[in-house]
Amino acid sequence: MSSTDPRVTVLSGGGGGAKLAHGMARAVVDLTVVVNTADDAVVYGLSVSPDLDTVMYTLAGLANRETGWGVGGDTFTTLDAMTRLGEDTWFRIGDQDLATNVVRTARLRAGARLSEVTGQLAAALGVRASLLPMTDDRVATVVDTDVGRLGFQEYFVGRRHQDEVRGIVLDGVEEARPAPGVLEALTAADVVVVGPSNPFVSIGPILAVPGVRDALAGTSARRVGVSPIVGGRALKGPAAAMLTTLGHETSALGVARLYTGLLDLYVIDEQDRHLAAEIEALGLPVTVLSTVMDDPDDRERLARELLDAARG
Amino acid sequence: MSSTDPRVTVLSGGGGGAKLAHGMARAVVDLTVVVNTADDAVVYGLSVSPDLDTVMYTLAGLANRETGWGVGGDTFTTLDAMTRLGEDTWFRIGDQDLATNVVRTARLRAGARLSEVTGQLAAALGVRASLLPMTDDRVATVVDTDVGRLGFQEYFVGRRHQDEVRGIVLDGVEEARPAPGVLEALTAADVVVVGPSNPFVSIGPILAVPGVRDALAGTSARRVGVSPIVGGRALKGPAAAMLTTLGHETSALGVARLYTGLLDLYVIDEQDRHLAAEIEALGLPVTVLSTVMDDPDDRERLARELLDAARG
Repeated sequence: MSSTDPRVTVLSGGGGGAKLAHGMARAVVDLTVVVNTADDAVVYGLSVSPDLDTVMYTLAGLANRETGWGVGGDTFTTLDAMTRLGEDTWFRIGDQDLATNVVRTARLRAGARLSEVTGQLAAALGVRASLLPMTDDRVATVVDTDVGRLGFQEYFVGRRHQDEVRGIVLDGVEEARPAPGVLEALTAADVVVVGPSNPFVSIGPILAVPGVRDALAGTSARRVGVSPIVGGRALKGPAAAMLTTLGHETSALGVARLYTGLLDLYVIDEQDRHLAAEIEALGLPVTVLSTVMDDPDDRERLARELLDAARG
Repeated sequence: MSSTDPRVTVLSGGGGGAKLAHGMARAVVDLTVVVNTADDAVVYGLSVSPDLDTVMYTLAGLANRETGWGVGGDTFTTLDAMTRLGEDTWFRIGDQDLATNVVRTARLRAGARLSEVTGQLAAALGVRASLLPMTDDRVATVVDTDVGRLGFQEYFVGRRHQDEVRGIVLDGVEEARPAPGVLEALTAADVVVVGPSNPFVSIGPILAVPGVRDALAGTSARRVGVSPIVGGRALKGPAAAMLTTLGHETSALGVARLYTGLLDLYVIDEQDRHLAAEIEALGLPVTVLSTVMDDPDDRERLARELLDAARG
């Protein structure tokens, strides 16, 4: 790969992956981010794409850094008015964020593909990276819990991921096709980064879209994974709890095992340095970095260190 | 009819009819407002019902009295964000107003009828009157102009009713059925008021729904029309211009002729006192009142004077 201008593709959900994608966007010119859409849903009649929007807002510098979703400083005038109208407003959408959802819904209803609309929205917000949904087709993560089968947003937002997850179903994924550009982004990249996102409900769905896992397995790109688990815990969200209840080791090692054969390098946090030998015993070289990203500079620092390690 | 508690039904569009309905809501307990829905449209993928919402907001005391549409003091955060996203935001919807449209659209998509949703929304806003769309079916006013055939909102909002109207088509009206309660509201009322709304694009569509004109023709209620034309002009909107371009006299008399056989009494403004004899020559008794409604007290004053005249 070119040392000055590598082509980088990041696979991402809405959490740590979005932050690393942001750092990468500051580090390289040619960036594609392939984003999970299996937690997309229809809420209030609107087609919401939480991970796509989190990545888009993060890359545009608009994200709400306190909450991890939505637009920073957004107001909730419409949602409050919807509450007064008797609507159960369990899913919070701010006024600016609502604009994204209204425009997306209208354009999808008018026949546009999600990938087209995503490109239009991201461009309008000044995002230079190529932002791709994993698919234009409907895939819906459903989780089996002790209270029954729940749609992902019901589990994640509605019940604040309090329920133990016994199983995960990616409804529709067998029929889904990769969105235009997704396979090319994997095969033509110099570096593919599997972001520090939930391996089951963020990265898992992307890899489950027919063709994607094979493209990642077969690419000549350097494939670098970043552990979403640091010190046995997820920085945000239910990844650690899912590892436990789904029968995996709740650690960076447990995640590494899930990506067997798909990575050339695995980045773990300094806190997990003691796991390096055991992960390398899987045949997966390890680089230890400071992976907790506090601010944009830190995200860029990690992106650059990751690229250096990928070259090494 | 009972002199203390008449049952009143008002036919209304979004302008003067809404104001008179508001006055009537302050004057009587048992009020039904049957509202034009032929200027409903899908804008930004949302099912907008401009006349229903204007009447609802007016009755709830929430209407924007400067503009005549939307919610007073509303903000436009979402619409501004939609503009930034590249959407052509020609149709202004404020943030609180948007809530109404999002909730309506979601409920309609979930299978509810417009009349159900309207009842829910109005009740949530504290409206005690029964607010009925003329129909739950789709009817769309289309106007023929020198620049071609235009959808109503395109003509009215998009092009600010600048084009001369050569003809009006009420697409779908032959197949439409009156919404539940509409015919009963006409047949069981003590007084039916044909509000001071546009006779072609507000009252006309209501009367064109199969069964409505016959119900009005056959009711035992006292039927009172209020001229939307004062001094040869409409207080708001294109009613006067339409009278002219569609070949009618541009006056309270011209409107009266359109309602031949449907009214027992016609209310004209003091400015039009000179037209009384000519209107009465049509066989339609006239009452002269001050019909320009400045504030809620004035609306109530007109409503009470109208009811007194209907009794007389």
